[in-house]
Amino acid sequence: MGVYLGLNRSMPLPSLKRLPGYLRVLQRLASRGQESVSCTQIAGELDLDPTQVRKDLAATGIVGKPRVGYQVKELASVVESFLGWNNVSDAFLAGAGNLGSALVNYDAFSDCGLNIVAVFDVDPGKIGTRLNGREVFALERMRELARRMRIKVGINAVPAAHSQHVVDQMIAGGIRAIWNFAPVKLEVPETILVENVSLSASWAVLSARLREGRGLEG
Amino acid sequence: MGVYLGLNRSMPLPSLKRLPGYLRVLQRLASRGQESVSCTQIAGELDLDPTQVRKDLAATGIVGKPRVGYQVKELASVVESFLGWNNVSDAFLAGAGNLGSALVNYDAFSDCGLNIVAVFDVDPGKIGTRLNGREVFALERMRELARRMRIKVGINAVPAAHSQHVVDQMIAGGIRAIWNFAPVKLEVPETILVENVSLSASWAVLSARLREGRGLEG
Repeated sequence: MGVYLGLNRSMPLPSLKRLPGYLRVLQRLASRGQESVSCTQIAGELDLDPTQVRKDLAATGIVGKPRVGYQVKELASVVESFLGWNNVSDAFLAGAGNLGSALVNYDAFSDCGLNIVAVFDVDPGKIGTRLNGREVFALERMRELARRMRIKVGINAVPAAHSQHVVDQMIAGGIRAIWNFAPVKLEVPETILVENVSLSASWAVLSARLREGRGLEG
Repeated sequence: MGVYLGLNRSMPLPSLKRLPGYLRVLQRLASRGQESVSCTQIAGELDLDPTQVRKDLAATGIVGKPRVGYQVKELASVVESFLGWNNVSDAFLAGAGNLGSALVNYDAFSDCGLNIVAVFDVDPGKIGTRLNGREVFALERMRELARRMRIKVGINAVPAAHSQHVVDQMIAGGIRAIWNFAPVKLEVPETILVENVSLSASWAVLSARLREGRGLEG
């Protein structure tokens, strides 16, 4: 695994974020029975620059052959391993509201090695019910259950104001990687991984471009 | 507005995506009555490098004064204008499922100049009901209502398989900017803006790092 470490640290974040798209294309090609693929074809499917695709894929340690390209199944397997999606990560989800419900029902996660095993909430009306087959437990039980089940991934889908408390409980339960959907900066020890899903950052890109367009018209 | 156009096109996407964080810090400082702020303080609040913050802010066209820094309210106003969040964008939301419900209930959008005015779905059980005060209309009415209300922003929160049809309807209704939450590549004319929220790309960052950590242990 040592070789992955060096490669991954040197992989720029935008490249890493493009890998799931490559994997989706490769899996579709594999399901159609296509055996080899070029950077140009992958790039065409995703509206990307072929040189960029070649560079991104080279960072995973795999090199295509001139005129042949890559073996589809082999490349898919390398990208999947690079992402860690060949091993399933069991995760706890905090928050059984609309966002939590959307996440539990998001089918694509099973292709990404992400398995939500239980949901936690403070609402007595939700505790004991099921969300897409997963039991909803009282939040106060999260710490103990995370320890017992050796859960390493926590998904935070509770409102911003309650997020720090929830994440503190996750960390106390041994969770080391936090996927945060709340618009708040979490305080965590250095050893804990946090990835924030920032809807406002995504909307910023669209609204700034839209504003540009308005400027052009006016 | 011409000056914005040039600046914005040259602003790297990661810088643009950091602006909402700066704005949030600035609004918090303003509400506390703080009048001036340094890059170092903004950087400290967000765990960023002060040089990066200075560079990002310079790209909006504003320059701080040595030893004084920036005027908090002035800087907040410039960043807000740059993002286009000083003008409210009325938007239609397609999909009244869990994800759509989460988006309609997401309070932070009002600070981002985003106003969801109506929701559309194909489920007869949902049509005619209300989601957080917004009426849910039949999807087939979206095109006509978008034209009549001159809506320019569409949010797609329907499943991947139905997304292309929904987005085609949005475009036929005059919508020019699409915020897409479905894990699917949309086919749109070149003049239409699309911003994809890719949950799998965000999860890729966390899972690749988590896999590195496992490598270190093993």
